[in-house]
Amino acid sequence: MAKRSLPKHVGFIPDGNRRWAASRGLSKEQGYGFGIEPGLVLFEMCRSLGIPEVSVYCFTQDNTKRPSLQIQAFRSACVTFAEEIARQGAALLVVGDETSSQFPPELRPFRTRQGGGMRVNLLVNYGWEWDLDGLRQGSIRSHEVSRLDLIVRWGGGRRLSGFLPVQSVYADFYVVEDYWPDFRPEHLEQALGWFKDQDQTLGG
Amino acid sequence: MAKRSLPKHVGFIPDGNRRWAASRGLSKEQGYGFGIEPGLVLFEMCRSLGIPEVSVYCFTQDNTKRPSLQIQAFRSACVTFAEEIARQGAALLVVGDETSSQFPPELRPFRTRQGGGMRVNLLVNYGWEWDLDGLRQGSIRSHEVSRLDLIVRWGGGRRLSGFLPVQSVYADFYVVEDYWPDFRPEHLEQALGWFKDQDQTLGG
Repeated sequence: MAKRSLPKHVGFIPDGNRRWAASRGLSKEQGYGFGIEPGLVLFEMCRSLGIPEVSVYCFTQDNTKRPSLQIQAFRSACVTFAEEIARQGAALLVVGDETSSQFPPELRPFRTRQGGGMRVNLLVNYGWEWDLDGLRQGSIRSHEVSRLDLIVRWGGGRRLSGFLPVQSVYADFYVVEDYWPDFRPEHLEQALGWFKDQDQTLGG
Repeated sequence: MAKRSLPKHVGFIPDGNRRWAASRGLSKEQGYGFGIEPGLVLFEMCRSLGIPEVSVYCFTQDNTKRPSLQIQAFRSACVTFAEEIARQGAALLVVGDETSSQFPPELRPFRTRQGGGMRVNLLVNYGWEWDLDGLRQGSIRSHEVSRLDLIVRWGGGRRLSGFLPVQSVYADFYVVEDYWPDFRPEHLEQALGWFKDQDQTLGG
């Protein structure tokens, strides 16, 4: 069976911000701000490696049921990150329900992809049902997002939690036990090394 | 966060039959027959434990692109298994495209659930696109299959390979390195033990 080289599209689930904060004696919402800088390092790594497309699970419609201090914190971290990578030339697309008040107005222009560099898809106020419900009108709402080859999740959880169900059908799933704010470049290196050793059969 | 007890619905991906056969000097298609008996042991274990519902990935529309000897072998193994658990009183539902010649005619009666014991859903000539395409007419085609709590995959693969994308959104994913025909009861015991230690947040 064919061995692979670099994935064409990697999904990232940066989980564990709240647990990280609690483990340091901080309040839960303080964890999100510490996730921005690791995201920028990861973005730069992917760009240097030549990965053509990445998707990041920022927050979901379900997440907006949390306490308002947390919502403010992850929304703000998300906007800061998005604006910074747009400034750095990412071809940014934001995927999520922009008709809701939970959608940050600053990100509305990015519901259409902007820019010409590495494709970065940020899931913002995203919901898997919202996404699939698009099929009733013809196609999933994330139809501009390509199929995922590899998904990397931080924080030890071994589940997708609603992350792009259609694009995830054949993705290899790599779990990092560390919480997201403890991101280190080796996490991505190890995930990519592991990915190369996986067989790819696509059911054939 | 709440700790769980027994999952209400477990999905099984019994992968590795061909690799198991090759490792024993058998031809690839001979592996499938060795998967039937482990399946019956697993079925009995789940029933004894009181798990209310299980789903098994038998074969997909993509799998039917394989050499015809292999297709015959997995179809035959699948029918033998289905008929035996029906005989043993499972509430059997077969989910898959029955309009195709690849669908075993013997299983057609089970496209409607039969029987009143543990619910067992067998994915037979199943395809994730076939399933989701049902949304265009109102609901997914696997709408009678409930949400999965836990998915156990044999054969080391860390991917869903198109297994029930809607029901899998919040499922915990447990991987057994052994090939499916090398199934041992400890595999399920370890998966259930691990499952109990996972947090359940459902995004909240």
